[in-house]
Amino acid sequence: MSIITLTTDFGIKDHFVGALKGKVFSEYPEAVIVDISHCIDLFNISETCYVISASYASFPKGTVHLIGVDSELNAENQHVAMLWNDQYFICADNGILSLLTKKIIPQKIVSINIHDRLPSEATAMDVFVTVACHLARGGLLNVIGREIKTLKDINAFQPVLAEENSVLKGNIIYVDHFGNVVSNISKKLFLEIGKGREYEISFKGYTLKTIFPNYSSIAISNTNFKNYEGEKLAIFNEAGYLEIAVYKSNPNKTGGASSLLGVKVNDGIVIRFK
Amino acid sequence: MSIITLTTDFGIKDHFVGALKGKVFSEYPEAVIVDISHCIDLFNISETCYVISASYASFPKGTVHLIGVDSELNAENQHVAMLWNDQYFICADNGILSLLTKKIIPQKIVSINIHDRLPSEATAMDVFVTVACHLARGGLLNVIGREIKTLKDINAFQPVLAEENSVLKGNIIYVDHFGNVVSNISKKLFLEIGKGREYEISFKGYTLKTIFPNYSSIAISNTNFKNYEGEKLAIFNEAGYLEIAVYKSNPNKTGGASSLLGVKVNDGIVIRFK
Amino acid sequence: MSIITLTTDFGIKDHFVGALKGKVFSEYPEAVIVDISHCIDLFNISETCYVISASYASFPKGTVHLIGVDSELNAENQHVAMLWNDQYFICADNGILSLLTKKIIPQKIVSINIHDRLPSEATAMDVFVTVACHLARGGLLNVIGREIKTLKDINAFQPVLAEENSVLKGNIIYVDHFGNVVSNISKKLFLEIGKGREYEISFKGYTLKTIFPNYSSIAISNTNFKNYEGEKLAIFNEAGYLEIAVYKSNPNKTGGASSLLGVKVNDGIVIRFK
Repeated sequence: MSIITLTTDFGIKDHFVGALKGKVFSEYPEAVIVDISHCIDLFNISETCYVISASYASFPKGTVHLIGVDSELNAENQHVAMLWNDQYFICADNGILSLLTKKIIPQKIVSINIHDRLPSEATAMDVFVTVACHLARGGLLNVIGREIKTLKDINAFQPVLAEENSVLKGNIIYVDHFGNVVSNISKKLFLEIGKGREYEISFKGYTLKTIFPNYSSIAISNTNFKNYEGEKLAIFNEAGYLEIAVYKSNPNKTGGASSLLGVKVNDGIVIRFK
Repeated sequence: MSIITLTTDFGIKDHFVGALKGKVFSEYPEAVIVDISHCIDLFNISETCYVISASYASFPKGTVHLIGVDSELNAENQHVAMLWNDQYFICADNGILSLLTKKIIPQKIVSINIHDRLPSEATAMDVFVTVACHLARGGLLNVIGREIKTLKDINAFQPVLAEENSVLKGNIIYVDHFGNVVSNISKKLFLEIGKGREYEISFKGYTLKTIFPNYSSIAISNTNFKNYEGEKLAIFNEAGYLEIAVYKSNPNKTGGASSLLGVKVNDGIVIRFK
Repeated sequence: MSIITLTTDFGIKDHFVGALKGKVFSEYPEAVIVDISHCIDLFNISETCYVISASYASFPKGTVHLIGVDSELNAENQHVAMLWNDQYFICADNGILSLLTKKIIPQKIVSINIHDRLPSEATAMDVFVTVACHLARGGLLNVIGREIKTLKDINAFQPVLAEENSVLKGNIIYVDHFGNVVSNISKKLFLEIGKGREYEISFKGYTLKTIFPNYSSIAISNTNFKNYEGEKLAIFNEAGYLEIAVYKSNPNKTGGASSLLGVKVNDGIVIRFK
């Protein structure tokens, strides 16, 4: 029995998410469903990319991720299912999986071809639910699709190396609930390129020379944490990406890193190794 | 074992929904609970009507729908439970079920009369939880209420026929997360009245002559979908109601159908058949 | 098999809550998880206090409450687990449990000491998930921590008695989704001190002389409820705290008690007994 996760831009007010779960339980009464997010910015491929990429590692092998963002079937947007890192991903082929497939090679990808087996008024969600329940029960990809070799790819998410591997140029790809801004520079890449060299992080005219292991490390002496509230810091977040934060900031009150430092999605962030 | 769904105006910040689920699990540890929405506009009967009406079809027979909107017991607001289309609905008799009962005749309705079996400080939710767990376990309506024949009815939700069945006059009843506006004209009624005739849809000075089967159909040539972003279209949504949408609109950014076209709840929408 | 509840300030857009649940299911596939709230104001100890205090009573014995607010481990913020009223609470020792421990004496408290058994990059949530799954499976507190006698305490939440027990001075501690304002004066304390005496409630220049058993009781004649919309009233809410409400108010439209009466968190509220 595998978990089915849901990531959509359906919002939380309408009946969409509840109805989606009803369809899953109708087809597979023992399903275990976990919501990842239903508040993805509408049709936003890059936000979806990050959220999926940041969450999969918390789930066991065999988990089935159903992604309902920009998922209506059309000539430019086929429905696909992918086995990757022993987990399944079901979505439209619109670039959503780019961050994953850049990290690890997919084990198998199929173009879903069960549409003519469903009623003519079936929606994208009906298709995805059928596939998700099939996979969660241990069914094979071959049964629901025709194998394909590649997916649409969005290169914009990849950091760029420059000056003979002494500079790593990334971008902000996400602003989280705390107002912290997340870049596309992973800890793995940082370690591979940096090889232990000293470094300097630059963004929007600011410079930082330390990436902390966690937020509280900002208090060097390990006391008087209150004094550090409002200070900026860099960490690798729990999803493994370089993040610029403001210690204990609140975007609904005093502001978070994004508003306080004026850093937005797509802004550049550069690490220069010495 | 039946599903219990929850539809309330309790919001998502307070402990209300969590406490409600705690009560269900305290009484019925094997319960399967699905949230439909907890962000119904406060005390809004017509929004609740639509959300319930749009979601029930996604759930299996025997599902128990607990509706916590304007549910405090008082002399004008008795507690009722209804068996309808092989599903159960528990709510206060405040008109919430009007869209359903207009569509299909209820199989049985009872006025809940278990209040004096519960502690004196029991809330409406305590009553509804007791009834929901009883029904989800397969219990009978007779055991928890006295049969009644009718419910409070809100006629405002019904479209009106005019000019010898050549005109169907409806209203906007809901604005969804995408900013799309939903009318009370169902596909079923449209097909019954239209009988295949040509038609013209009018609202707020706009005219549309096609109801598409899905959003992507707006791209007649089935290519260059990007070019159609921002265009208005009519579809029957997955809940079966006539909807005016703006293709790939985002109410948080460029605006959705409601803001872009200036269409609000209660505005008229007319279909003229030829 | 015990329920695990989640109360955090993680918000609902990011992957944080989904990832947290993925970790629980990875460790304990049969877990039953209930969300209390993920929209606690960021790092807000007093809101967390109230939400926990208002919800625990709806859950069965043995329930495990995981609280992820201001939970990063540091020298001022140890990780603790408490057995209290036959339920478990896991959090950082930052005052979050003050409202509970003032009400009933804890059965056992431990300072969690499993950190060195987990990978070095383990987050506070990894620690809490491990402890929660251990306790939900029926594990002992001793196994995951060292017994301690007291927790950090926030006195601000306690009402004060004055003038020879004829005056009870409290504060507003929470504003709910309906705009109603909740004080720290419990029904239990009110009954103990008041001993049936008449009383007058004062706040922000307003005076009320009745605490109703429920909202609908505002309509003395038990009819014409519509006429009472917009009127202020006092009740003991279902969590057992004195609340000032405006009948059927909607903070998103006409305003709620907080905005209409100008009452905010920390404002005083006084009951004078006669």
